Amino acid sequence: MLSEAEIIKKVQQAMNSVAAGVYGIGDDAAILPLNDMTSYVISKDLLVEDTHFRLRYFEPENLSHKALHVNLSDLAAMGATPQFVLLGLSIPQDLDQGWIDTFLEGFVGECKKQEISLIGGDTTLSQHGLFISATVIGQAQKAHLKFRNRAQPGEILCVAGPLGEAGAGLVALEKGISGLESLKERVLRPEALIQEGIWFGKQQKVTAMMDISDGLYIDLSRLCQASCVGASIELSTLKPSPTLLEGCQQMGLDPLECMLTGGEDYALLMTIEADDYPTLAKDFKERFEYSLITIGKTTKNHSIILTQDGLLTSFAYTPFSHFKELG
Amino acid sequence: MLSEAEIIKKVQQAMNSVAAGVYGIGDDAAILPLNDMTSYVISKDLLVEDTHFRLRYFEPENLSHKALHVNLSDLAAMGATPQFVLLGLSIPQDLDQGWIDTFLEGFVGECKKQEISLIGGDTTLSQHGLFISATVIGQAQKAHLKFRNRAQPGEILCVAGPLGEAGAGLVALEKGISGLESLKERVLRPEALIQEGIWFGKQQKVTAMMDISDGLYIDLSRLCQASCVGASIELSTLKPSPTLLEGCQQMGLDPLECMLTGGEDYALLMTIEADDYPTLAKDFKERFEYSLITIGKTTKNHSIILTQDGLLTSFAYTPFSHFKELG
Repeated sequence: MLSEAEIIKKVQQAMNSVAAGVYGIGDDAAILPLNDMTSYVISKDLLVEDTHFRLRYFEPENLSHKALHVNLSDLAAMGATPQFVLLGLSIPQDLDQGWIDTFLEGFVGECKKQEISLIGGDTTLSQHGLFISATVIGQAQKAHLKFRNRAQPGEILCVAGPLGEAGAGLVALEKGISGLESLKERVLRPEALIQEGIWFGKQQKVTAMMDISDGLYIDLSRLCQASCVGASIELSTLKPSPTLLEGCQQMGLDPLECMLTGGEDYALLMTIEADDYPTLAKDFKERFEYSLITIGKTTKNHSIILTQDGLLTSFAYTPFSHFKELG
Repeated sequence: MLSEAEIIKKVQQAMNSVAAGVYGIGDDAAILPLNDMTSYVISKDLLVEDTHFRLRYFEPENLSHKALHVNLSDLAAMGATPQFVLLGLSIPQDLDQGWIDTFLEGFVGECKKQEISLIGGDTTLSQHGLFISATVIGQAQKAHLKFRNRAQPGEILCVAGPLGEAGAGLVALEKGISGLESLKERVLRPEALIQEGIWFGKQQKVTAMMDISDGLYIDLSRLCQASCVGASIELSTLKPSPTLLEGCQQMGLDPLECMLTGGEDYALLMTIEADDYPTLAKDFKERFEYSLITIGKTTKNHSIILTQDGLLTSFAYTPFSHFKELG
C-alpha cells in the first residue's frame, strides 16, 4: 500500500509530465491568463470525511467555514484577492437535513462576508461519507503574484500567523480531551490570512511565499526544494503562545514539535530580502497588529539545518498526516 | 432522509440566494469574466464511487476518460472550447498502485489528446472509497455562449448524439450481463460532444443548449423550466439504434423508456428558431456526418406534452438516479 505522500508524489509527477511550469503546477494555486496586467489564480482543495475531518466534532457551520478557508489560504499564499467559488458536495443520504441546511447557510454566509460569489458547483449523493470539494478563484496583478520557487540564498525566512496551535488542537479533539477550546478553534474554524497574503503580494522584497498546511518543517522543505535553496532555522525563535504551552503541558506534548510538525496552521511562510526585512517587519506589525516570526535564513546548501541558540541540533521528524499518527 | 433530487434542490436554492444570475448558476457551467469579447467558462463535476461508478467494472483508463469527459460535456453545452483542468482525487489506501498509474496515464493522455492543460489539483487519501472531482475551464466568445434559459415558444427541439444507449448499457453492467459491449462502452467511455458544442455555439439561431446527463425527459424539463416554456415531444421521432434495440430485446427493456429516461447520454439538447432549422440541420449533417434528432417543439404552455404519431399519449416517468433503481 502507498502512503499519502507517495500517492501525492505520483500524481504530481503525472501532472509535471504534461503541465508547463508557467501555470504554477506544484504551487499553492494555478494561474489562469486574464490580461496583460492581471491573472486569475485558481485552487481546489478536498476535504474528506475521516481523512480531514470527523463529523463527531465538526459542527456544520465550522466545517463549511473551514472548507472555504483552506481554499482561500491557497489564494492568500499567491497574493491573490478571492472573488469566486464553486462548491462540490457529495452527501451521505443519512445526513440530517438540518445539518445540511446549517452547512449551506454557513458557507453562503461566509462567502458574503468575504465578498466572494458562489458561482456554481455540483451536488451528489454519497454511499461512502461526506466529500467536500471547493474550487476558489481570485485575482492578482501579475507583478504581485508570489510563488514558492523564487527564494534565493541569504534571505530571511519568516512566518505570519500562529504555529502549532492547530496541531495541538487536533490532538485534543481526537483524544476527546475537554477544554482547550481556543486550540480546538484553530482546527475547527481556521482563518485564511487573506489580507496578509494580499499585503505580502504587494511587497516587492517578498521573494517567495506559500501557506503552511502540513506543518512548518515539511512545507519549508517544499519551498526549499522548489527554490533550490536550503535553510537554517533557529529553534529559539519558535516561542509557543501561552495557550499552546498550557495545552501541551496538559496533554504531554512537546510545544516545539507542535510548531515544527503540527499541520493545519494555515499560516504564511515567506522569504524576504535581508536588507529590507526590518522595515517590512515594522510595517507589517503596524498594519496587522501582530509580529512576524523570524525563523531563520535561506542557505546555498540544499538541506535544512536546525540550531538551538546558534548550536547545531537535530530533530526527530515525524511528518504530519492528519489522523494517522493519532490512532 | 432526503432524495438526491431534494438535496440538489436545497443546494441550488442556497446558491441562488447569493449568486447573481449573470454568473450562470443553474446552468451547465459558470461564467468568469475575461474581456470585452470573451469569457471563461468553468464547471466542476464529481464522480463518486458507488454513486456514479463501480470499481468492479470500470477499468482505470475508462474511469479517468469519463472523469474528464463528463466535465467537458458541460463546457460543450455552453459552446466553449476547453483549455484547462484541475484534478482532485481522494484515493483509498488499498487501491492498487498499478491502478492509480493507469488512471493517471489515461487522464494525462486524454488531456493531451484534447489539448487541455492539466494545471493543478489536490490529492488526498480516502477512508471511504474513491472520489474524483475535476474542474474544467474553457473559453468562448460572449456572442457564442449558449444558456439553457433562452428558449422561446415555437422553436424546434433537437438532440445531437445518441440517446438511451448509455442507460441500457448501465443496466447491462449492473446486472452483469455479458456481451452488449457497445452499449457498455457508452457508459464506460462517454465522449463529450466538444466540436458539436463549439459549432452550435457559433450558430446564432441556436437559442438554448444544455447537455443531457440525467435523461432526455428530466433535462428537457429543466430547460423548459429555465426558459419558462413548455414542450411537445413526438415519440415517433425517438428511433432506437439497432444496437439499443437489440440490447433492450435481450434485457427486456423498453427502448423508448431508455431514450427518454436513461441517464449518462452526454448528448446535447438544443432549441433552434424554426425557419432556420432545415438549413442548420443540413449543415450539421455535412459537418459531422450524422443527423440531428428533431424531437418536437417548444410551446407557450409550461408543461411537457408527449404525442405518438400526433396523438396525445402519456408516459409513466421514473427519474434516472444512477444505481438506485437497479437495486
